[in-house]
Amino acid sequence: MNEHILSAYDRDLEGLVTLIMKMGGLVEQAILDAAKSLETQDIELAETVRRRDKAIDALELEVNDVAATVIALRAPVSKDLRIILTVLRLAASLERIGDYAKNIAKRTSTLIDMPNSASSNSSLRRMSREVQSMLKDVLDAFVRRDAEIAEDVRQRDQEVDQMYNALFREFLTFMMEDPRQITGCMHLHFMAKNIERMGDLTTNMAEQVIYLVTGEMPEEDRPKSDSTSYLSTLE
Amino acid sequence: MNEHILSAYDRDLEGLVTLIMKMGGLVEQAILDAAKSLETQDIELAETVRRRDKAIDALELEVNDVAATVIALRAPVSKDLRIILTVLRLAASLERIGDYAKNIAKRTSTLIDMPNSASSNSSLRRMSREVQSMLKDVLDAFVRRDAEIAEDVRQRDQEVDQMYNALFREFLTFMMEDPRQITGCMHLHFMAKNIERMGDLTTNMAEQVIYLVTGEMPEEDRPKSDSTSYLSTLE
Repeated sequence: MNEHILSAYDRDLEGLVTLIMKMGGLVEQAILDAAKSLETQDIELAETVRRRDKAIDALELEVNDVAATVIALRAPVSKDLRIILTVLRLAASLERIGDYAKNIAKRTSTLIDMPNSASSNSSLRRMSREVQSMLKDVLDAFVRRDAEIAEDVRQRDQEVDQMYNALFREFLTFMMEDPRQITGCMHLHFMAKNIERMGDLTTNMAEQVIYLVTGEMPEEDRPKSDSTSYLSTLE
Repeated sequence: MNEHILSAYDRDLEGLVTLIMKMGGLVEQAILDAAKSLETQDIELAETVRRRDKAIDALELEVNDVAATVIALRAPVSKDLRIILTVLRLAASLERIGDYAKNIAKRTSTLIDMPNSASSNSSLRRMSREVQSMLKDVLDAFVRRDAEIAEDVRQRDQEVDQMYNALFREFLTFMMEDPRQITGCMHLHFMAKNIERMGDLTTNMAEQVIYLVTGEMPEEDRPKSDSTSYLSTLE
């Protein structure tokens, strides 16, 4: 009987993990497609990203419902409960990352008619690719319960922050040189900030995985590299 | 015996609600102080906001721990479980709102040495006050299980979005008129966006409360009024 309950619980848990992986796959695709639609000026792809966000939102609600049912039916404790609570947090982060991708796609539709620099578009795409690869690894770390992969993701967020810092300076320069670029650069800059935030959320997910595996939250030793809040002059 | 268990559960739940209210109070204070430090150019107050964010983060971890313990010990189902899961989501939103307030305070420290428009600072403060008042009401709605108050908060977010739209246009105008204002305006603009996001998070909290009370997620009928992603020209 006890074994029967255990395996029913395992099946439930597997169902939850499947949902999270499905959600993660959609979010990864959204990140890549949003950046691609910007670089290739593909307004239809941008529309698709926006439309598909509904599926991501629906999956989050499903994860919440299934998790609540599993807790109510199986009354899991300690480690098992921690896995389910982690799943809830991962789903919430994925939903937010999906929102940022949708927001980028929205701005792509606006930017299509504005003069803008192709070089920033490809920088933004590079940044997006890095975040997508971090996200892929963090989901992998979760499935394998591998704190090392998660720690690696956490460190890689610094690269994303550095790319963002460089872009922030680049946009300021463009705007100062040519005021007609101001509106376009503001949008591009928001996109860069959105990608940087996706990186932060992915880092939070990595920390959740580390907590799940080791039982300890990683220390705040990770140097925060978005230094633009302090930027008062352009050197 | 059953009564004894029930009242122990009620005590646990009360403890959780007390933690959330304490967290909410600190976050409300952070929102107000961040905006005040900007308007009054009070760098010490800005530092205080940044320092106090640690207490908010610590409270979120405490909420998570207590909630996990209550679930594990009491194995709550249906409504009781839904309350605890709602508490977890409210705490996560509060933590994020606190982060935005910290970020605003960080930029205040930077802006102190830059030429900037006093009129935008007071607009930002007005926007912050509105968000703080929404947050106060949403916590009230949670404690009273009052879906009407929560629905009202949800509607008020439109005003915050409209204030943001007006500021976005104002900053673009300032930057075009005087390129020396660009860096300062970028920071002010980020602050405005952070306040707008705090409003969105407060709205999410209101939706969680509505879901808790009515069992249904409100429809997406709320018109999204941040239209700046579509803004391609300045009329």
